[in-house]
Amino acid sequence: MRNINSLTPVFCPRSVAVIGASTVAGKLGHDILYNLIHAGFPGPIYPINPKADQVLGLAAYKQIGDAPSSPDLAVIVIPARAVAGAIEQCGQAGVKGAIVITGGFAEAGEEGEKLQEELAQAARRHNVRVIGPNCQGINNPHHNLCASWPLLTTRGAMAFISQSGTVGAALMDWASQELLGVSVFVSLGNRADIDEADAIQYFNQDPHTKVIALYIEGVKRPVYFLDALAEATKPVVILKAGRTKQGRLAAESHTKSLAGQDAVYDAIFRKYKVHRAETIEELYDFAKGLAYLSKPRGRRLLNITSSGGAAILAIDAAERLGFQLPPPSPVLQAKLREIVPPHCAVGNPVDLTGDVMSDPGLYAKVIDASRVEYDNLVVIFGDPVPGAHQIVTPNAQELVIFLGGAEVERQEVPLIHRRGIPVFPTPERGLGALHQFFRFEPMPTVGPIEPSAIQELSLVPPSEAAALLAKHGIPVAACPLATTADEAVTLAAQFDSPVALKIWSPDLPHKTDVGGVRLNLTTEDEIRSECQDLVKTALTHVPWARIDGVTVSPMAKPGGMEVILGILTDPQYGSTLMFGLGGVFTEIYRDVQFCLLPAADEELWELIRSIKGYPLLAGARGFPPLDQEALLLTMKALARVATSNPQLDQIELNPLLVYERGVFAVDARMYSRVSS
Amino acid sequence: MRNINSLTPVFCPRSVAVIGASTVAGKLGHDILYNLIHAGFPGPIYPINPKADQVLGLAAYKQIGDAPSSPDLAVIVIPARAVAGAIEQCGQAGVKGAIVITGGFAEAGEEGEKLQEELAQAARRHNVRVIGPNCQGINNPHHNLCASWPLLTTRGAMAFISQSGTVGAALMDWASQELLGVSVFVSLGNRADIDEADAIQYFNQDPHTKVIALYIEGVKRPVYFLDALAEATKPVVILKAGRTKQGRLAAESHTKSLAGQDAVYDAIFRKYKVHRAETIEELYDFAKGLAYLSKPRGRRLLNITSSGGAAILAIDAAERLGFQLPPPSPVLQAKLREIVPPHCAVGNPVDLTGDVMSDPGLYAKVIDASRVEYDNLVVIFGDPVPGAHQIVTPNAQELVIFLGGAEVERQEVPLIHRRGIPVFPTPERGLGALHQFFRFEPMPTVGPIEPSAIQELSLVPPSEAAALLAKHGIPVAACPLATTADEAVTLAAQFDSPVALKIWSPDLPHKTDVGGVRLNLTTEDEIRSECQDLVKTALTHVPWARIDGVTVSPMAKPGGMEVILGILTDPQYGSTLMFGLGGVFTEIYRDVQFCLLPAADEELWELIRSIKGYPLLAGARGFPPLDQEALLLTMKALARVATSNPQLDQIELNPLLVYERGVFAVDARMYSRVSS
Repeated sequence: MRNINSLTPVFCPRSVAVIGASTVAGKLGHDILYNLIHAGFPGPIYPINPKADQVLGLAAYKQIGDAPSSPDLAVIVIPARAVAGAIEQCGQAGVKGAIVITGGFAEAGEEGEKLQEELAQAARRHNVRVIGPNCQGINNPHHNLCASWPLLTTRGAMAFISQSGTVGAALMDWASQELLGVSVFVSLGNRADIDEADAIQYFNQDPHTKVIALYIEGVKRPVYFLDALAEATKPVVILKAGRTKQGRLAAESHTKSLAGQDAVYDAIFRKYKVHRAETIEELYDFAKGLAYLSKPRGRRLLNITSSGGAAILAIDAAERLGFQLPPPSPVLQAKLREIVPPHCAVGNPVDLTGDVMSDPGLYAKVIDASRVEYDNLVVIFGDPVPGAHQIVTPNAQELVIFLGGAEVERQEVPLIHRRGIPVFPTPERGLGALHQFFRFEPMPTVGPIEPSAIQELSLVPPSEAAALLAKHGIPVAACPLATTADEAVTLAAQFDSPVALKIWSPDLPHKTDVGGVRLNLTTEDEIRSECQDLVKTALTHVPWARIDGVTVSPMAKPGGMEVILGILTDPQYGSTLMFGLGGVFTEIYRDVQFCLLPAADEELWELIRSIKGYPLLAGARGFPPLDQEALLLTMKALARVATSNPQLDQIELNPLLVYERGVFAVDARMYSRVSS
Repeated sequence: MRNINSLTPVFCPRSVAVIGASTVAGKLGHDILYNLIHAGFPGPIYPINPKADQVLGLAAYKQIGDAPSSPDLAVIVIPARAVAGAIEQCGQAGVKGAIVITGGFAEAGEEGEKLQEELAQAARRHNVRVIGPNCQGINNPHHNLCASWPLLTTRGAMAFISQSGTVGAALMDWASQELLGVSVFVSLGNRADIDEADAIQYFNQDPHTKVIALYIEGVKRPVYFLDALAEATKPVVILKAGRTKQGRLAAESHTKSLAGQDAVYDAIFRKYKVHRAETIEELYDFAKGLAYLSKPRGRRLLNITSSGGAAILAIDAAERLGFQLPPPSPVLQAKLREIVPPHCAVGNPVDLTGDVMSDPGLYAKVIDASRVEYDNLVVIFGDPVPGAHQIVTPNAQELVIFLGGAEVERQEVPLIHRRGIPVFPTPERGLGALHQFFRFEPMPTVGPIEPSAIQELSLVPPSEAAALLAKHGIPVAACPLATTADEAVTLAAQFDSPVALKIWSPDLPHKTDVGGVRLNLTTEDEIRSECQDLVKTALTHVPWARIDGVTVSPMAKPGGMEVILGILTDPQYGSTLMFGLGGVFTEIYRDVQFCLLPAADEELWELIRSIKGYPLLAGARGFPPLDQEALLLTMKALARVATSNPQLDQIELNPLLVYERGVFAVDARMYSRVSS
């Protein structure tokens, strides 16, 4: 890494000159000087202007060498062709850093590139460290330095470092509006000298910075960049633009540097635990959360809310992100019942209802009582809650969300921010920020999704299921039941192909999961031994399972695409048809779509085309197109099976093989409702 | 559908009573009356209060029957147990509609459910249509009716209908803050009578409503709901909460109704072309876009910006959403060059740079010149652009984004909104809203992603590639080259398994795509005829391809999991290792991750675990765990191949089969850099 001491005069100068200081309001050379003065910069400020004696009330000097002492930093706002000369003079006058606001360099074509090279050479010759050119400057409110625009002075803990002045300004503006503030805003511009690696390294050791947030389009010096990331001890959040093909080309043309393959940045960011943001809002939210939230001890959250709806949205977001949402313990429930009015639900969420508008103290009581049992409390103010800022506690394990509070919200949120507690405007954004603390930990595993009413359903015996499907014209594997290994051998003999053995138990719908499927068996010995082993293995998984026997099926001919086709009965909308990628990939990629029944042919065609894997059916990558007509007919037949057998609740053909000609259901699972 | 005329007295009453009007500020019975008065309701307002003669300056009545005329609508703000009686009295007095604000009904337990049933019965008996109970009322600014809180009066075109008062209030508050306003805000509450189906039907025929946006947790009457969606001619946007398992349980407990399987709502929304929002912000953005943007004629966008960075983010979002971003035609480029300063880039984007701060007129000139060539202009104000509101045109094909403009932005955005033009705060949110017009059209197909430098690379002959891999210890299929069918037969004879034939041409890296692969051949005749057919087919795809012959490989033993393993050279970061799901699914599911080289073992383990398909390697669903150790060794060997052969730019093993014991590379593709 390069020495960062040389950056101090740039980011924390003791004195500043403005080369190109102007007396005309609206010109940048005027406005930046104005901002420097009005942000309260404590050191000397020297306007440099060959024609004026005074600018904005300060004595002006014809050239930098005329200033009474040598300033640490020069802000340069003069035409591009004069900049290299100005840097030269700065160097001679002992200036240590420069911010070149002026544009018209590398971003503006060949001539500009030449000017930028001259600028860089002059800077290297005199050891002047340079920000820019073509940038929006630096705003370091902790140092009362606003060598930038707009004039913002709110001090905070987030460092925003941006290759785009606009994106950085937007972030700084949001932080300022929210009264959270920034530790610094650095607009890097064309990066003729100081770049993202320098800035990460410098602000990693800046005492006011808790998180380093960057917008980048490309990286100038990959090795330094990786070193800076590797050495950073503070959280780094990055929005990397130019992710798509055209976005990358635009980025390369904008920054005149390689943007690189986006997937490589995924690898880099995973390796160095960089929080990758997908949008400007995420960049802001993640930085805000990492700077101001406390890292929760674990993933157990309790929602404390005045709004049932907002809490449900919080729960949706939390579950998707791997948080846990256990109900309060019986002891805590009893305690909470004493605190809240009887019509308030006491679970997860604790729903205080609109009562909090007249009794905001309810929040504080519930928070106090619940703290010990949870890793984090999601406190949702979903109404105009007066005095909300007194309810929450800095550095406590709390995530605060405020919405639907109109004027009261607009008064309270800045007050909460003043106390160093971040407030998020929606449940989704708040949980997304909190999740950053767990981003590099593996997601906790979750069990398979089961229809909630499964307990009241019974599995239809496979041979019965196959017969029903066959009756409606669906090609399906025969699956006679063998109760002994000998019977299995006899049954297998009738097929002129290898066979599959599958356990049959009304208690084991997921045969594969319990090792209850053996494929491609050809010899008597194989069949016999696998038959016995199959039952044994299944029983080690589920010792109490009732096992009726083993079904024997011919193996399907190879080469078909595996899809899943099924019927699910929705308690409100009735029969629905499910279709998607089948086989072992079904649960992993969840490339499955539904369609209400009855459905017109056009809807079924749309269903077929709606899955991501559709190109494989249509004949992608040199493969022949598969028989979509037969698939459609099977969908219609399966819908008829459902209509004419209303006792059936679920049917699942998985896999259904789709060939160039025809389809074939390898396995069918059916549940019927238990009549009582 | 039910008759919606009976809803007019509820949503557009001519006279209103407030039952429970209070003289105490802060009580809802006081504040709602205050809001009714101050929103300027033009008809009579009757406070009902048994103890006061006057409330807020209006004559009060002891009971509803005492009012001088029978009001259309009664807003009820009295304790829950008195509400059914009040509805009864309303009915007797000829009141046609009621809004029950009071909570403590079905949401609050068994007793509350009983009270709600009594309320519903009273309403049915007297044909009183009811909103609520447990709701936040109605705000219809076009009718000067604010029977709700907070007091907001901005008129707009978006109808917000919400099962959550908070979510609805947040949306209304945002719309109000932005000066866009709403056509109506309806808080549905417990929906004892009027529900989402009624509201959709009613506001579909409301002349002020352009888009119907709903927050729902569950649906009361599925059949009516589907009918309402089917009959809606206006765009409908829905945020459906309760998507996850725990979210659904929370929703069911909150609304006391079934929330339904979330996937079924995907099917419903696809069928009825409902714009599904994933977050509160999307609900707002989509509604705003559909209400105020014009539907673009097509997908061709031009970005006109003052900020290069914001434009790149816009391009990233646009490309991902299927928009097209062609450069301006040569004629238009020439025209634009005359308009903009020389340092401004004229392409897609047209980058006007910060110059627009002093010359905002540049935007208007570029917009005028470009309109004819594009379907939509993305106008990005990325600086404080004074007078921005005069630059854009209502109902034009423009998408306006404003960020980084600080105070000027806060002045201009409401002015632009007043003109009926929506402004979005980030490129991502703006493009997301614009995309809604194309949401139900198929995505345009895009070609496969090719490394940009592919032209300067040459394909390494397969036998050489295989030898190199074998030398480094990677098990790989032998692939001797046959130049005649006879040779192929001879080569096949040396393998004691069926063989695969693959075309070998330095011009055909993607053999499968040109029909250049034949698998599982056993007999001499097969080999001979497929050999000839193979070459013929490949030549019909690429007639100019130089064909060196056909490789003959033994078929791999079945049962392995197909993964892809490769080396890609990044121009900045050097060699990277790629790993993911292999075979035909690679391009469809893109379950591929990268890792920088050199990499420690722990990093490679993490790479292995980082793909979605990892459970299949680890032994999910009853399958045996596969040989991850062998996979790791292969990764390390492949890294060595790359290190010791720096001329290689890309290596791709696809598929690499991972078995219970060992791995096997079925096909290897290598590119080396052409030395000049």
